[in-house]
Amino acid sequence: MKPKVSRAVYPGSFDPVTYGHLDIVARALRIFDEIIVAVAHNEEKHPVFTVPERVEMLKEATREMAGVTVDDFDGLAVAYVRQKKAHVLIRGLRAVSDFEYEFQMALTNRQFDKEVETLFMMPSQEYSFLSSKLIKEAAALRGDVSSFVPPFVAKLLTQKLVRS
Amino acid sequence: MKPKVSRAVYPGSFDPVTYGHLDIVARALRIFDEIIVAVAHNEEKHPVFTVPERVEMLKEATREMAGVTVDDFDGLAVAYVRQKKAHVLIRGLRAVSDFEYEFQMALTNRQFDKEVETLFMMPSQEYSFLSSKLIKEAAALRGDVSSFVPPFVAKLLTQKLVRS
Amino acid sequence: MKPKVSRAVYPGSFDPVTYGHLDIVARALRIFDEIIVAVAHNEEKHPVFTVPERVEMLKEATREMAGVTVDDFDGLAVAYVRQKKAHVLIRGLRAVSDFEYEFQMALTNRQFDKEVETLFMMPSQEYSFLSSKLIKEAAALRGDVSSFVPPFVAKLLTQKLVRS
Amino acid sequence: MKPKVSRAVYPGSFDPVTYGHLDIVARALRIFDEIIVAVAHNEEKHPVFTVPERVEMLKEATREMAGVTVDDFDGLAVAYVRQKKAHVLIRGLRAVSDFEYEFQMALTNRQFDKEVETLFMMPSQEYSFLSSKLIKEAAALRGDVSSFVPPFVAKLLTQKLVRS
Amino acid sequence: MKPKVSRAVYPGSFDPVTYGHLDIVARALRIFDEIIVAVAHNEEKHPVFTVPERVEMLKEATREMAGVTVDDFDGLAVAYVRQKKAHVLIRGLRAVSDFEYEFQMALTNRQFDKEVETLFMMPSQEYSFLSSKLIKEAAALRGDVSSFVPPFVAKLLTQKLVRS
Amino acid sequence: MKPKVSRAVYPGSFDPVTYGHLDIVARALRIFDEIIVAVAHNEEKHPVFTVPERVEMLKEATREMAGVTVDDFDGLAVAYVRQKKAHVLIRGLRAVSDFEYEFQMALTNRQFDKEVETLFMMPSQEYSFLSSKLIKEAAALRGDVSSFVPPFVAKLLTQKLVRS
Repeated sequence: MKPKVSRAVYPGSFDPVTYGHLDIVARALRIFDEIIVAVAHNEEKHPVFTVPERVEMLKEATREMAGVTVDDFDGLAVAYVRQKKAHVLIRGLRAVSDFEYEFQMALTNRQFDKEVETLFMMPSQEYSFLSSKLIKEAAALRGDVSSFVPPFVAKLLTQKLVRS
Repeated sequence: MKPKVSRAVYPGSFDPVTYGHLDIVARALRIFDEIIVAVAHNEEKHPVFTVPERVEMLKEATREMAGVTVDDFDGLAVAYVRQKKAHVLIRGLRAVSDFEYEFQMALTNRQFDKEVETLFMMPSQEYSFLSSKLIKEAAALRGDVSSFVPPFVAKLLTQKLVRS
Repeated sequence: MKPKVSRAVYPGSFDPVTYGHLDIVARALRIFDEIIVAVAHNEEKHPVFTVPERVEMLKEATREMAGVTVDDFDGLAVAYVRQKKAHVLIRGLRAVSDFEYEFQMALTNRQFDKEVETLFMMPSQEYSFLSSKLIKEAAALRGDVSSFVPPFVAKLLTQKLVRS
Repeated sequence: MKPKVSRAVYPGSFDPVTYGHLDIVARALRIFDEIIVAVAHNEEKHPVFTVPERVEMLKEATREMAGVTVDDFDGLAVAYVRQKKAHVLIRGLRAVSDFEYEFQMALTNRQFDKEVETLFMMPSQEYSFLSSKLIKEAAALRGDVSSFVPPFVAKLLTQKLVRS
Repeated sequence: MKPKVSRAVYPGSFDPVTYGHLDIVARALRIFDEIIVAVAHNEEKHPVFTVPERVEMLKEATREMAGVTVDDFDGLAVAYVRQKKAHVLIRGLRAVSDFEYEFQMALTNRQFDKEVETLFMMPSQEYSFLSSKLIKEAAALRGDVSSFVPPFVAKLLTQKLVRS
Repeated sequence: MKPKVSRAVYPGSFDPVTYGHLDIVARALRIFDEIIVAVAHNEEKHPVFTVPERVEMLKEATREMAGVTVDDFDGLAVAYVRQKKAHVLIRGLRAVSDFEYEFQMALTNRQFDKEVETLFMMPSQEYSFLSSKLIKEAAALRGDVSSFVPPFVAKLLTQKLVRS
């Protein structure tokens, strides 16, 4: 018997990838055979890292996770999910404030494509307060963020953000 | 290739089953081959329907959904998930107030069994405000609840709750 | 030209009436000619005061407000609104936690009667944290609640709740 | 007998008008004789449409609703309400996240003018997750937003936002 | 120079004491010389443990913390704080749902005694989702709660709650 | 006996200082001997007032409060707390929306320095909805903000914000 679903898409900004994101990927891999981590083009949010930089960081960070591919996409997330012949979209839910925005976005996405289902997963408790935004703020203030992101990401953050 | 996961458990009170619950079951069936809808023994909450009544209603309501089985369980939900050789626990998230409680319960469950993953799914928007509690209150006040629950459930609710 | 709406219903438990409720009535009277304050029969919530006692307290407390009538009702609030030939139902919104429950209830009510519109009003800031429940708890612990409810209500609360 | 209130003001950004806004206008018209939909000057938010464009869209969208006038205003909303000899300010409440901000703004407004009362109304459930912001994001990504806004607005959004 | 404040009261139900409560006590001890942990009489909440049992458990659990005394009180918490010649009341804030209730209670307390100040402290992240209620539910279902409460408390919970 | 803690740091943007901030300072002074009000350098938020301007306003506004010093800091707040040989960081909690962000920030801060404890205090109810952001918006629209901020701050706000 073939699995009903073997592929899921995990879209996001990943600016930069955190241990929270990686935790979600690892959890999703226990349920689905293949996870496509997809970096959104969102220049209007003034990301710190370019799309190719974010893709590269994700590839490095997921190198040892079998079943993960990293990609980027432009346009609606649901359109990308369809294009990859998947119909599951994964989102991590943190303890703070995510929920209402995520709910609204998932309902909007469903309006665009009723066949794509959003699944919400919960990161490990220790990462449930991690926010890329706070991490960037802390790094800019010379805070040591190596307990929030992989070491090579921490280094890149410092290079980009610390005013010398 | 075997599916990584083909079975998921959807535990709850189902006192009584609503169109919102049935919507979640249908959505979950598009992802998993088998859904076990599991009625919790929760006498301390003074349910309106007994466990056998709730199991019976669910069986009737899911009769035409291939891949659904209905069961009941005592003890921790995660222990039941394990016993059924599954490792996915499904919960529906409504627009109101569920999230914090669900998050807390999912973290507690994870503490009891790290291998069981909770997946949150979102019912159709028209059901995102449905609450078994409000439905019971309305039925007790002679409100017509047939747009919230299947007709035979509405009838049973009236029999149980309307003071004659 | 006749007013489109001249009558509104303000349903609730009023167990007991607080300065927050009275503030909402006064505000509603500036918009509508007639406000019917309607006490719900809700024995399942084990109210401290009986329906006749609550009606009596409301009558006393609104005695000098022209345009207010006090009544009680059994059944759905929207059915009562219709029966009184009104189509506006007023609810006060406090700063804490009310909103999601009120939203859910208003949507449920709309399902029962699409012609009845719920209007939410905001009490004065000093009353935006008042809760009948906390007031009852405080009175039972011999707290002086006379800044939250009219003096005669404070007295009745003490009579009912303080263990002698 | 003259109506106590026959005129209410519904201020907002309307960048652009959505079916949710129009639903609120229609509901308000069942209670008040005259609704003034008032577009706020808010250049600091970098609106997609100019004030005259937003006024024009609202006029077109409310053309068949008797009792609606469309205007724009600079300065405080409560000052505008007064200037129009009204004392009711209408705000729509969506299911997500609006409430706290709306509550805070309504209390601030009350500080500026105690005579102006804010009434909160609830859009139809199908519009309770609509957000002008998400609609603009979706349109920019070539999403079809015609189930969220009138067709002519969808067309204008595409003209403004889609990078050719 | 004498300290401005050397004594703080930490009131609560403690039914039963959890690692989260003990974490708050330890943190408070770094700021204040003396912490009085005060068990509220709240029979109306049908606690699992009696007041003397809860006092005993707290004494045992804080035995090695210098500066802690355990007591119980009837009546308003602020009245008790005053009676102990303190003017600081400590409350722990968890990640979920506590805040609005705590805010409301603190404002109510301030109404009763303007001199008593409520300080909110945050437990360690690993305890930020602990809830005495969920722990009791889990223990009743034979869940192993020894990562949430001290071993002797887990044992007592099992004795009280597990239906044999 | 020496006080355990006699110094606390109250960091923030203070753009500009409001009566809510001053209320927190006064409350904190009843518990600690010395409060350092510390203005954060946060150019990325495009503050209306420069750091020296904000420091000056705070000095003027706290002139008659014994035990208050005003300073500014660059970098992480917890690093500044340490540098001042304090280990308590004070934050005010308003009724709206603050909590989740504050909780997240406090947990992040704790990650950077486990010895610094965040204490949350509650402003007087009349200030619990004050927001520097809303005050700036109102001042820009020529609203009279003198019930929210000291008169000299209101005057400076008008000078900076009103388009002449």
